[in-house]
Amino acid sequence: MDLDHLRELGQQLRVDAVRAADAAGSGHPTSSMSAADLMAVLLARHLHYDFDRPDHPGNDHLVFSKGHASPLLYALFKAAGAIGDDELLTFRRHGSRLEGHPTPRLPWVDVATGSLGQGLPVGVGLALAGKRLDRLPYRTWVLCGDSELAEGSMWEAFEYAGHEGLDNLTAIVDVNRLGQRGPTRHEWDLDAYARRIRAFGWHTVEIDGHDPAAVEAAYAEAKATPHRPTAVIARTLKGQGVDAVEDREGAHGKPLPDAAEAIAELGGQRALRVDVQPPPEVRESERPLADLRLPRYEPGEEVATRDAYGRALAALGTARGDVVALDGEVSDSTRAKFFAQEHPDRFIECYIAEQQLVAAAVGVRARGWVPYVSTFGAFLTRAHDFLRMAAVSGAGLRVAGSHAGVAIGPDGPSQMALEDLAMLRAVHGSTVLYPCDPNQTGRLVSAMCDRPGISYLRTSRDAYPGLYGPEEPFAIGGSKVLRSSGEDQVTLAAAGVTVHEALAAADRLAEEGIAARVIDLYSVKPVDAETLHEAARDTGRIVTVEDHRPEGGLGDAVLEAFADGRPVPRVARLAVRTMPDSATADEQLAAAGIDREAITAAARRLVASPG
Amino acid sequence: MDLDHLRELGQQLRVDAVRAADAAGSGHPTSSMSAADLMAVLLARHLHYDFDRPDHPGNDHLVFSKGHASPLLYALFKAAGAIGDDELLTFRRHGSRLEGHPTPRLPWVDVATGSLGQGLPVGVGLALAGKRLDRLPYRTWVLCGDSELAEGSMWEAFEYAGHEGLDNLTAIVDVNRLGQRGPTRHEWDLDAYARRIRAFGWHTVEIDGHDPAAVEAAYAEAKATPHRPTAVIARTLKGQGVDAVEDREGAHGKPLPDAAEAIAELGGQRALRVDVQPPPEVRESERPLADLRLPRYEPGEEVATRDAYGRALAALGTARGDVVALDGEVSDSTRAKFFAQEHPDRFIECYIAEQQLVAAAVGVRARGWVPYVSTFGAFLTRAHDFLRMAAVSGAGLRVAGSHAGVAIGPDGPSQMALEDLAMLRAVHGSTVLYPCDPNQTGRLVSAMCDRPGISYLRTSRDAYPGLYGPEEPFAIGGSKVLRSSGEDQVTLAAAGVTVHEALAAADRLAEEGIAARVIDLYSVKPVDAETLHEAARDTGRIVTVEDHRPEGGLGDAVLEAFADGRPVPRVARLAVRTMPDSATADEQLAAAGIDREAITAAARRLVASPG
Repeated sequence: MDLDHLRELGQQLRVDAVRAADAAGSGHPTSSMSAADLMAVLLARHLHYDFDRPDHPGNDHLVFSKGHASPLLYALFKAAGAIGDDELLTFRRHGSRLEGHPTPRLPWVDVATGSLGQGLPVGVGLALAGKRLDRLPYRTWVLCGDSELAEGSMWEAFEYAGHEGLDNLTAIVDVNRLGQRGPTRHEWDLDAYARRIRAFGWHTVEIDGHDPAAVEAAYAEAKATPHRPTAVIARTLKGQGVDAVEDREGAHGKPLPDAAEAIAELGGQRALRVDVQPPPEVRESERPLADLRLPRYEPGEEVATRDAYGRALAALGTARGDVVALDGEVSDSTRAKFFAQEHPDRFIECYIAEQQLVAAAVGVRARGWVPYVSTFGAFLTRAHDFLRMAAVSGAGLRVAGSHAGVAIGPDGPSQMALEDLAMLRAVHGSTVLYPCDPNQTGRLVSAMCDRPGISYLRTSRDAYPGLYGPEEPFAIGGSKVLRSSGEDQVTLAAAGVTVHEALAAADRLAEEGIAARVIDLYSVKPVDAETLHEAARDTGRIVTVEDHRPEGGLGDAVLEAFADGRPVPRVARLAVRTMPDSATADEQLAAAGIDREAITAAARRLVASPG
Repeated sequence: MDLDHLRELGQQLRVDAVRAADAAGSGHPTSSMSAADLMAVLLARHLHYDFDRPDHPGNDHLVFSKGHASPLLYALFKAAGAIGDDELLTFRRHGSRLEGHPTPRLPWVDVATGSLGQGLPVGVGLALAGKRLDRLPYRTWVLCGDSELAEGSMWEAFEYAGHEGLDNLTAIVDVNRLGQRGPTRHEWDLDAYARRIRAFGWHTVEIDGHDPAAVEAAYAEAKATPHRPTAVIARTLKGQGVDAVEDREGAHGKPLPDAAEAIAELGGQRALRVDVQPPPEVRESERPLADLRLPRYEPGEEVATRDAYGRALAALGTARGDVVALDGEVSDSTRAKFFAQEHPDRFIECYIAEQQLVAAAVGVRARGWVPYVSTFGAFLTRAHDFLRMAAVSGAGLRVAGSHAGVAIGPDGPSQMALEDLAMLRAVHGSTVLYPCDPNQTGRLVSAMCDRPGISYLRTSRDAYPGLYGPEEPFAIGGSKVLRSSGEDQVTLAAAGVTVHEALAAADRLAEEGIAARVIDLYSVKPVDAETLHEAARDTGRIVTVEDHRPEGGLGDAVLEAFADGRPVPRVARLAVRTMPDSATADEQLAAAGIDREAITAAARRLVASPG
C-alpha cells in the first residue's frame, strides 16, 4: 500500500470512527481521529496478525492503552475484514461486542483497557512473555495517549521495559495536546516526553503523526533498533480532518456535532480492505507437565503459611511448566524466593512497582502462562485498579498477599493487610482464600492453578502449629468443622490466625459448660454456605472473628450466606476496629479484640442473650 | 557545627539506631545507618524547626519517605532534644509513640510513611501548600530510598514538582544499593537516577553520602537553585560503619547481630545535642470565613448529584477560605470545575495521577487546609494505598468519586465505580455517603467539611428528579424514611440511584397490596442502625439494593447494624453480580437486576416466603 492509499485508509478509519460514535450517540471520535494515520500505517505495513486465528502464537499484539479510542480500534478491525460494517454500527449497544472501551469479548483484544495508564504496563508483560517465556518473535505495539503519561504506572512500565531491553515493544504516543478538560501538562512539547522516556533507556522518535511517510519510517526504525524498546512520539491534532472539532476544546468524548457534514469533509465513506501481513509460522513453546509433589507437614509442626506458599509454589513450578511467579522485590518475605531459586527462568522480579507487577501478570496470562503474583497484602492495594481491570479482562490471575493483619506484630499498620479481603472479595468473579495451616496452604496453592478469574491467597507472617495432615483435601468453597457436638450452643467462624484463637476459645468455653462449634472458613469467597446454614440451624448464634477491618471481610462473607431470605442467625462480629501501633503479635490480637479472650467473652455474651 | 562534629553526630545517630533496634528486637538499623550522615548535616545545618512548636507555620517539613528508617528519625529527635534516651529505647513497644514506621502520634511527624513511594508525593503536597496556599518560606525535605524509585507514584511526584518548579522541595535519595532481598535495579548507578530525575525538570547533585562536606554543599546548592526542585542523589553503604553488616546482603530489616560490638566499632555512645535553627517568624495566611449559601433546588428538579457536588463545593469555597479542591484532570466530569472557575487560586490540577492527587491532598491537609479530592470513583482504586495510609496518618480528607455504578450507561465497566463502597468502608475511621438528590448532596458536602478522617461522597452521572426541599436537614449517620405505614410488610433499603428505583417498586408493590417501607440510606457508613432496627422490628424483612458489587457495600452495611447479637431480619440482597457491557442506564439497571422490576420481584418473594 503506497502513501496515498495509507492516507485514504487513515480517512476511512476517521469516517468509520465518526459513524460508529454517531450511531451510538456517544464515544470518543476525536481521540480516534488523532491516531488514525498512526494506526493505518501500522495495520497496513507493520502488524503481523491472523484475524482468523487470534490465538496464533506468532501474532503481534496491539494494545490500545488509550482505550477510549475504541471507535478507531473497531474501524481497524473492519478494515482488516474481521468485522462487518453492520457490526461496526452496533458500537456501545447492549449485547454488542463493540463496547465503549475494548474488552476481550472481542477475540482480537488481549486485555480490557479504559482505565488510563494500564495498556503499556500490560504491553510490557506481553513483550516480556515474548522474550523470556515464549521466546517467539512477535512484537507488541501499544497506542498510548498523552494525558495518560501523567500516570505513574506508565513510568513503572518505561523503567521495566528500558531496563530489560525489550526491543520487541513499541509505544506509539498520540500527542494530541488536549485532555478531557483542556490542554495536557506538556501540550505539544514532544521533547518533554522524549527526554523523559529516553532517560529510562528507550529509543525515541519524534514525528508528525499525520505524515504516513514519517510514521512508516518511525516504525521501521523501531523494528531495527536492537536492545531497546522504542517510543514513537507523534504530534497529532485531536479531531483531525474536521474543522468543527479539530484541535478544539470541548470536543472530547462526544459524537461530532454534524456527522454527515464531517464525513463529507473527510471525503465520504470508503471501502478499503487491508490484507494484514500474516504472522510467521511458529510453534508454542513447550510447557511440560509432571506429577505434583507438594511438601508434606505433620500436624503440630509450626510452619508459617507464607513459607508453605513459597514451597508449594516451587513444587507446582516443577509439576507445571506453565507456572510463572512474579514478585515485587519482597520475595524474601513472601517466600516466592523458593520458586525463584528452583525456577529462575520462570521467575519475574518486578521490583517495588505493584502496578507493573500485576500488569506483567496480566500480559503473561494473555499468552497462556499461569502467573502467581506475590507481595505484602497491604501493598496489593497499590494495584487495586489493575486487579479490577484484570477482572474486566477475565484474566486468570493468582495473587498471594503476605503479612496479613495485626498478627505481623511490631512493624505497625503501614505493613498490615487489613483491607485486602474487602478489596479482593469485591473484585468480580474472584476467589478469596485464607489458610491457617501449611498442608492446607499447599492444597489451595494447587487448587488456584486452574481456577478462572482472580484467586487471592492471604498468608501470615508467623508460624502456628499445623492442624491438618498432608492427605486432607481442601476444596475451594469448602470449610472444615474443627469442633462439633450435638449440643453446640454457638458457632465460632474463623480463618487464618483466628482459627487458632477460636480453638483455644472453644476449650475455655467448654470449661464453662458452653459447647462451641469451630469452623475454619479458609474459603472466604465462595464461602461454604451449606455448613454455615447447618451451624445456624444447630446453634442459632455465630461469632465471626477476623484479623481484618470489620467491613468487607469474613464477617460480611458469613452474612452473605444468609442473603436469600432464609432465617438469619444472631451474630457477633469481632474484627480490627482500632488503629494498631507497634506491639508483639499476641499484644496486637488482644488489643484488637480478636484473641481467645475476646472470642470467649463474645460467645459467652451471645449465649446468655435472650433468644 | 564543624565537619568533625557532623561526623560525630552521624556516628551518634548510627549508634542510637542500633540501640533502638536492639532494644526492640526488630527494625531497620542498616537502612538507618546509610542515611545517618545525610540526616546529621540536615539537622545541624539546614533544617529550620521549633521542636517545642510543631505547629509553627514557619517550620520546615521533614518526611521520611523511606519510613522503615524510623530508628534514624527517632535518633534525630533525640539529638534535637525532642525525646529522651529512655523513650528512644521504647521503640516498637506497645503504647510507645516510636512505632515501627513513623506516624503522627509523634507531633513532629506530618504524615505516616512505611508504604514506599508515598513520602515524596506527600512532600510535593507540602511544598505546593508552601508556594501556592500558605505563601510561606518553609522548605520540605524528603528522605527517599533507592528501592522506592521503582514506584510509579515517585514519578508522578517528580513530574508534578518539576513542572510546578517547586524550588522549596529537596529530595534526598539514599542510594545504598541493597533492597529487601538483594541489589536494587540500578545499584550504585547514580547517573541512572540523576538522568531520569533531571528529565522531569529537577536539578540534581550526585555526592558521596558519607562525606559531610559534600552533603553540606549539596544542600546549600539545593537552597540556592531557583525555579527547580533539587534531588540530592547520595551514594551510601547500607549498614555503614559496622563491618558485620556494611554493604552485605541478608542484613535488611533486622537488629545487628552483636549490638555491643557494633556500638564499640562505631566509637561508643555519644551525647551530642543539636540546637536546631529556629523557623522564621511568620504568620499563618488568612483563611476568611463567611456564611455558607448552598444552591437551592426545588423537589422534582432534575439535577445530577455530580453537578450538585460541584456547585456546593464552589459555594463552600466562598464561605470558607480554607477549602481547597484537587482533581485528576476530569473536573469537567466530576464538576469540580465549578469550584475551579470561582476559586482558581485554591484549585489544584493534578492531571491523571490519582496517587499524587490524594498525596497532594494529604500534604495540603498537614498544613491545615481542608482538601476536597475528586475523580471518577472507579479511578480512586488507583489511590487505594494512599487512602489507606492517609487513615494511618489520621488525615482529614474529603473525597468525591463520580460516575457511580452501572447507571453511567454506555461507557462500560472500566469507567464504573462498582467496588468503591467496599474500598472506602474498609478504610479505618471513614465516612461513606451516597446521595440521591441535589439538596441532600449540598448538605453532605457541607457536613463533610469538619468531619475527622476520610469522608467519601459517591456521585452519579445522570440527573434524577430531586426528592427533598432545600431546608431538609441531613445528618451524617442518618437516613430518610421516604415511605412508611403501620402495615409495612417489607423494607426497601437503597441509596443513590436505587432510591428512585425503590420508590417506583414501592408503588408497584402497593398496587399488589404489599406495603413497603422505603429507606434512603444516604449515609452508608456510619449507617443509621436505629432506623434499620425499627424497620426490622416492624417488617421483619429487608431488601437491600445497590449499584455496586454484592460485597462490601450497602447490603453489608445494613447487616453490620445487626452484628451485636440482636435478632436479624430476613434479607434479600440485590447488587451488580454481572460484568456489564455497554448499554443505556436503564438497560444497565435492568441487566444487573437492580431496577424497579427486580426490587418488586425480590420484595414479593420475600413477603411470600415462610416466616
